[in-house]
Amino acid sequence: MNRIVISTGGGDAPGLNAVIYSVVKSSLARGWEVYGSKSGYRGLIEPDELIRLTADQVRDITSTGGTILGSTNKGNPFAMPVENEAGEILLRDISDRIMTNFTRMGFSCHIAVGGDGSLEIAHRFAVEKGMPVIGVPKTIDNDLEATQMTFGFDTAVSTATEAIDKLHSTAKSHDRVMVVEVMGRDSGWIALSSGISGGADVILIPEIPFNIKTISRKIADNELDGKLYTIIVVAEGASAEESGKIHKKTEQSEIGRQELLLGGIGEWVAAKVRESSGKDTRSLVLGHLQRGGSPTTFDRLLALRFGAAAVRMAENSQFDQMVSLVNGEMEAVPLADAIRERKKVPLNSDKVMTAREIGICLGDY
Amino acid sequence: MNRIVISTGGGDAPGLNAVIYSVVKSSLARGWEVYGSKSGYRGLIEPDELIRLTADQVRDITSTGGTILGSTNKGNPFAMPVENEAGEILLRDISDRIMTNFTRMGFSCHIAVGGDGSLEIAHRFAVEKGMPVIGVPKTIDNDLEATQMTFGFDTAVSTATEAIDKLHSTAKSHDRVMVVEVMGRDSGWIALSSGISGGADVILIPEIPFNIKTISRKIADNELDGKLYTIIVVAEGASAEESGKIHKKTEQSEIGRQELLLGGIGEWVAAKVRESSGKDTRSLVLGHLQRGGSPTTFDRLLALRFGAAAVRMAENSQFDQMVSLVNGEMEAVPLADAIRERKKVPLNSDKVMTAREIGICLGDY
Amino acid sequence: MNRIVISTGGGDAPGLNAVIYSVVKSSLARGWEVYGSKSGYRGLIEPDELIRLTADQVRDITSTGGTILGSTNKGNPFAMPVENEAGEILLRDISDRIMTNFTRMGFSCHIAVGGDGSLEIAHRFAVEKGMPVIGVPKTIDNDLEATQMTFGFDTAVSTATEAIDKLHSTAKSHDRVMVVEVMGRDSGWIALSSGISGGADVILIPEIPFNIKTISRKIADNELDGKLYTIIVVAEGASAEESGKIHKKTEQSEIGRQELLLGGIGEWVAAKVRESSGKDTRSLVLGHLQRGGSPTTFDRLLALRFGAAAVRMAENSQFDQMVSLVNGEMEAVPLADAIRERKKVPLNSDKVMTAREIGICLGDY
Amino acid sequence: MNRIVISTGGGDAPGLNAVIYSVVKSSLARGWEVYGSKSGYRGLIEPDELIRLTADQVRDITSTGGTILGSTNKGNPFAMPVENEAGEILLRDISDRIMTNFTRMGFSCHIAVGGDGSLEIAHRFAVEKGMPVIGVPKTIDNDLEATQMTFGFDTAVSTATEAIDKLHSTAKSHDRVMVVEVMGRDSGWIALSSGISGGADVILIPEIPFNIKTISRKIADNELDGKLYTIIVVAEGASAEESGKIHKKTEQSEIGRQELLLGGIGEWVAAKVRESSGKDTRSLVLGHLQRGGSPTTFDRLLALRFGAAAVRMAENSQFDQMVSLVNGEMEAVPLADAIRERKKVPLNSDKVMTAREIGICLGDY
Repeated sequence: MNRIVISTGGGDAPGLNAVIYSVVKSSLARGWEVYGSKSGYRGLIEPDELIRLTADQVRDITSTGGTILGSTNKGNPFAMPVENEAGEILLRDISDRIMTNFTRMGFSCHIAVGGDGSLEIAHRFAVEKGMPVIGVPKTIDNDLEATQMTFGFDTAVSTATEAIDKLHSTAKSHDRVMVVEVMGRDSGWIALSSGISGGADVILIPEIPFNIKTISRKIADNELDGKLYTIIVVAEGASAEESGKIHKKTEQSEIGRQELLLGGIGEWVAAKVRESSGKDTRSLVLGHLQRGGSPTTFDRLLALRFGAAAVRMAENSQFDQMVSLVNGEMEAVPLADAIRERKKVPLNSDKVMTAREIGICLGDY
Repeated sequence: MNRIVISTGGGDAPGLNAVIYSVVKSSLARGWEVYGSKSGYRGLIEPDELIRLTADQVRDITSTGGTILGSTNKGNPFAMPVENEAGEILLRDISDRIMTNFTRMGFSCHIAVGGDGSLEIAHRFAVEKGMPVIGVPKTIDNDLEATQMTFGFDTAVSTATEAIDKLHSTAKSHDRVMVVEVMGRDSGWIALSSGISGGADVILIPEIPFNIKTISRKIADNELDGKLYTIIVVAEGASAEESGKIHKKTEQSEIGRQELLLGGIGEWVAAKVRESSGKDTRSLVLGHLQRGGSPTTFDRLLALRFGAAAVRMAENSQFDQMVSLVNGEMEAVPLADAIRERKKVPLNSDKVMTAREIGICLGDY
Repeated sequence: MNRIVISTGGGDAPGLNAVIYSVVKSSLARGWEVYGSKSGYRGLIEPDELIRLTADQVRDITSTGGTILGSTNKGNPFAMPVENEAGEILLRDISDRIMTNFTRMGFSCHIAVGGDGSLEIAHRFAVEKGMPVIGVPKTIDNDLEATQMTFGFDTAVSTATEAIDKLHSTAKSHDRVMVVEVMGRDSGWIALSSGISGGADVILIPEIPFNIKTISRKIADNELDGKLYTIIVVAEGASAEESGKIHKKTEQSEIGRQELLLGGIGEWVAAKVRESSGKDTRSLVLGHLQRGGSPTTFDRLLALRFGAAAVRMAENSQFDQMVSLVNGEMEAVPLADAIRERKKVPLNSDKVMTAREIGICLGDY
Repeated sequence: MNRIVISTGGGDAPGLNAVIYSVVKSSLARGWEVYGSKSGYRGLIEPDELIRLTADQVRDITSTGGTILGSTNKGNPFAMPVENEAGEILLRDISDRIMTNFTRMGFSCHIAVGGDGSLEIAHRFAVEKGMPVIGVPKTIDNDLEATQMTFGFDTAVSTATEAIDKLHSTAKSHDRVMVVEVMGRDSGWIALSSGISGGADVILIPEIPFNIKTISRKIADNELDGKLYTIIVVAEGASAEESGKIHKKTEQSEIGRQELLLGGIGEWVAAKVRESSGKDTRSLVLGHLQRGGSPTTFDRLLALRFGAAAVRMAENSQFDQMVSLVNGEMEAVPLADAIRERKKVPLNSDKVMTAREIGICLGDY
C-alpha cells in the first residue's frame, strides 16, 4: 500500500481543488492513503497541518476556487525566513527536517502542485534528498515550456474576455478609449488570447515593445472607419520601446505607498494615449479577478486529468517528473526540463499572426 | 397616427436597448412611426442624426449592452457649450431650435430615457416649451426616489457580486485583505446589495461615515474565528469619519494626472488597513465593468416593461410624467417629483439591518 | 436566550441555503442557539436528524444550490404514511409526538421554509398545537398571493431565459420552430417572464387557453416578415381551448411508463404545430434545470433578507406569520392569509400587456 | 487580387460567426474581396443569395451564436432533391452549374466551413471539378480524426456541464437518480468530458456498451457511501449490451409521431433504472441547447485562428486541404485524410482512465 502526500504551493489558480479531488479519488481507488500538507510544506513540519484526505472531504470541491490546502507561499524550505532572538530575519535550511518527517510518516510519494518556484523546490528535494516527487504544473500565465497548457489559464482568459466584452458597450456609448491591464509579467499569453477573443483593437505584450505613436495611429484609423472607440488590452509586463522611462508595476508591500503613486502600465498607457489622442481615456486593472472563482469546464477537466495522471505516475514510480499535456494527451516529463525555461509568445506563432491579420495592432512598427 | 421620437441620455446602462426595442415594437403595433434621436438631442438638431426605427433595426438588440442611439452626453440644450470664432467656449441655449424642429417634423411625443440630469432637461422642455415628454428612468445606482427600481441596477449588482465571489478564493489562499471599490457616488445601494450577496465582511457606503479602527477590529475578530482573510466592499462615495483627510475620487479629465496620484477611496482604505493591521492588502476598482455588458434577465424584463408602459402613457397623453415601478407594477409619476430627490439608503432599512444582523461590519461605531 | 429550529420543506429552490445562512448568523448574533431539522420535520422525530448549526457549518453556503438540511418531502406529519405489520400503508397523525419533542428540547421558535404545502402544515402546528411558528415562503413559481416575490423565481426565470437565448441561433440556422416547456403547473409567471426577456414569439400560459390556429398564424406572419423561425415558450400547465383532448403531464411514478408514451404539453404543441405548419419543429423540456444551481444575486439577497427578517419576527414573537416582500420591504403577514390563495397572472396585468404590445402571441383569439 | 467565397454548411455550431469574421478581416487586410454564399452553396446558384462581406457587416459578430450565412443544410449539390412536374422528388447533380458560376464570378478560392458531410462535398468539388477549396472543420462532437479539436465542442461541453451542475442540488434534495442525455450519436466525447467535469456518477458512451445491472450496483454503492442520489450522463448514441432491445433515437421528420412514443436513450435508461433500483428517477434531454448560444472564449479564439489560417492557406494555394489543430498549432491536412475516419473515444485513452480512476462508472463489467 502506498501513502501519498499532496501539497499546493504558490499563488491561487482555478482548478487546484480539482487536482486534489482527482489525486484523492484515484489513490483511494487503488487502496492507498492520501494526506494533504497544508500551506505548502507546512504539514511536513507541524503535525497539525497534515490532514487525512477522504472521499467525504473532497466531495463537491471540484468546481470551487482556491485550495482546501491553503496554497499560501510560506517560503522556500531550503532557505526559510526565521526570526532569531535578536529579531533579525535569517534564512535557514529546514529541508532535512522535512525529509526526515516525510520518511518517518511512511510516505511513498509527494505530489507537488505548483508553479515554477514550487516545482524547482520539489526537484531539489528529489535530487538532493531523494524524495519521490511528482510535479503537477500550475501557472495562470501558461508559460511553462514543457506542457501545452496548464489549468487555470482558460479561466483567467475567460474572465479577462468577459471583462473586455463588457467594456465594449461603455466605450462605444462614450466614444472612449478603454485600457484593460491583464496578468502576464513575462509573457503575453493571457493578453493575447483574451484580446483576440474579446475583439480588442490593440494588444500590448511583454514580447513586443510598443510605441505610443503606433497606438495613436490605430485610434485615428478606427475613427476614419467610423469606429469612435478603442479597446486596448495590456499585459502587466508590457513595456514601451522608450522603456527606460517606464515604471514597471512593483510588488505591493513595504513599498505599497510608492505603487499608489506610480500606478501600473495600464494607467501609464492611458495617460499617454489621453495626451497624444486627446480622447476620453479610462483604465482598469483586472488583477486578482483573474486568479479566482470557479474553474471553467475546460480547466476542471484538465485539472482532473492531471491529478489522475500524477497518481498513475506514482504507481509506476516515475519520480522527479512532471505530468504534462502533449498534443492533447498526458505525458511524463523530467522536472529538470520543466523548470528550465519559460514559454514566451513566439513572434511568428499562429496567435500573433492571427491577431495581426484580423487587424489588431500589437503596438510595434 | 402618432410619430414618436426616442432619445437616450447620460451614461451607459444595461437595458437601454431593451427599452428602445419595446418602445419601437409597441409603437409599430399601434400603427405609429418611431424615430431615434442619436446622441441625446442631436437628432433634433441635425437631420442625419435622426433615424427611422423599424422592426428590422431593433431585432435582436434586447440582450445587447450599450444603446444603438449612442447615449453620449453631448451637453444640455439649455446651455450647450459652443466654440465661438475666438475659440472661446460659450454656453448657448438651443432649446428653441430643438422645439421648432420637433414640431416641424410632426412629432407627437418624445420619450426621454435618462438619469436625473436628462430627466430634468426633459422636464424643462415640457414646462418651458410645451414639449409632450415622457420619461423613462435610468440610473445604475438605483437612487431615484420615485421608482422602486431602475433597469441596469440588477446587472451592476450582479457584476459586482460575481467579482466579489471570485476574490474570496484568492483572499483565502493568501490570508489577504481584499478591498473592492464599486460604484455609488452618493448612495450605497450597489455596495450594500453586492456586499451582502457576495459575503463581504465589511461594507462601506456614503450614508455611513466609516472608521478605520472599526474595520481593523473586524479583521482581528475574523482571525479569532479562524478566518484569516477579509473582503471589504467600498462605494466610491464612501468617506471616513475623519473625512477632511480623505481625497475623494475626482473626475478624470484635465486633472487626470492628479487622479493617478491620488487614487480612489478603495486604495485609500487599502493603504490604511495595511498600515493598521499589517496584513497583505490589495485593492481593486471595478469601475466601468459595472455599466457594461448584457443586461440580466431581470433588467431585460424591467426595461421592456418600462418601454411598453411609456408608449401606453403616450397613448393616454400622460405627458411630463415618468414611468415608474411601484410595488411591482407600472405607474406614472410627475417628472417634477421624480427628479426632486435622490434615494439614499435609509439607515433603518431592512437591507442595512440584514447586513448588521448577519455579521457584516458597516464601518461605524 | 432563544433556541430556534429551522426546517426546509418541499421541492428544491435556489436560495434555501442563503435563508439558512441568514437565520443562523442573525440568531448567533443575538446569542441564540439554532438547530436544523433535517428532511422536513424529521429532526423533531429522530434525534440524529437534528443538527446544531454553527457559523462554521454555514460558511460559504450562501451561493450554493440545494439545502444542507435535505428538503425532501417526507410527508405530512398530520397524515404520515406508515407501513403496518401487514405491509399496508396507513396514514398516521404524528403531530403530537413532534410537538412534544419540540417542547422537550426547549425550542422557542420554529422557522419553516417551504411552499404552500409546508406553510399550511406549519400553520396547523401553530393553530392546533400552539407551536410558535414563522414561515418563509418558497415557491419557484412565484405564485403566493401574500408576497411580491419569492426567492428562487429569479434564478428559474434566468435559467429559462438563457436556454431560450441559446435556442434562437439554432432555430434561425435551420428555419425551425422550437418549443420550450418551462415550469408552471397553475400559473404562467415563469413562462411569461422568461418568454418576454428571451424574445419568444409565442408564450402559452395556464391562465390563457390557447388555440393552435392562432399559433400557426403567428408562424406565417413571421415568415411574411422574413423571419423563418419561431420560438414558443409553453408553461407545463398550459392547455388548449379544445382542452378535453389534451393529455396533461402527469407525475412520474408507478405510471412512469405511461408518461413516456404521452409526453408533456411541449411535445403536444410541437406535434400539432408540425402538423399544421409543416415546419421542422423540435421541443425541449427544461424541467429540473430550473430548480437547481447557484441562486442569482437577486435571489441570494432576497433569501438573506427573508432569513434575517424571520429572526427579527422571532424576536418580536410575531408567530403564525410569514415574512413577505411588500413594495420592496419586509413585512409580516398572517400565515392564514398567505396560504389561502395562489397568485395567477392577471389578464390585464402590465406583463401581459407588455407581451402583447411588443408583438408576442399569447395563443388566444 | 484574390476573390474569396465562404460558405457554412450543416448544423449550427457556436463559433461559425467567429470563423466568418476572421476570414473576412484577414482577407480584407490583404486587399482581397470576400463574398458569403448563403445557405450552403445557394449563393453559387442564385445571385441574390451571394452577399459582399465588408468589415461593417462582420463587426460584433464574433461572440454571437449561429451564422450570418444561414447554415441550413439545403442538400448535396451532387445529388440535390428537385421536384419534377409530376411532383416527384428526384436527385439532380447541379455541381457543374455551381462550378460554372464560381468561375464566372472570378472566385479564386472557396472556404468551406462544415462537418464531414460538407467537407466531403468540398473535397469532391476539388477533385472532380477543380475548385480551389479550403476546408474549416466544424463538428460539435469533436470526432474528426485529423484535428485535435474543433470549435463549438468546448461550448457544448460547457453547456452540458453547467446543466449537470444544476441537477446535483435537485437530485440531492430529493434523493433522486437524474439521467441527462447529451449529444454524441457515434462518439462519447461530449458525454465523457461533461460527465467528468460535472461530477457524474455514471457516464454511458457509444464506445462502451452498458449494462443496467452495473448501473444499479453503482447506485447501491453510492447509498452505502451515504450518497443517496446519482447523476447519469448518457450520450444519445449509447446502447445497452442487450442492444437488440434498444430503440435508438430516430430523426424527427415524417416519423415524428413515432419518436414521441419511443423516447430517447435517456428515457429508456431512466425507465430501466427506476425499475431495477426502485428509486425516483427523472430524465432530461439537453438537445439543441448544446448547439446554440454564444461561443466560449476558447471556441472564439479557436474559430478566429481557424479563419485566419484558412486565408493564409489560400494565400499559399494549399487547396483541397483543411485547417487543423495539431499540438496547439495550425496545420494543413489533406481533405481526403480529414474525412476518412471518425475519431472514437479510445478505450485506453487518458480521459477514460481518469473517469474510471476517480470512481465514475462507465456502465461496463
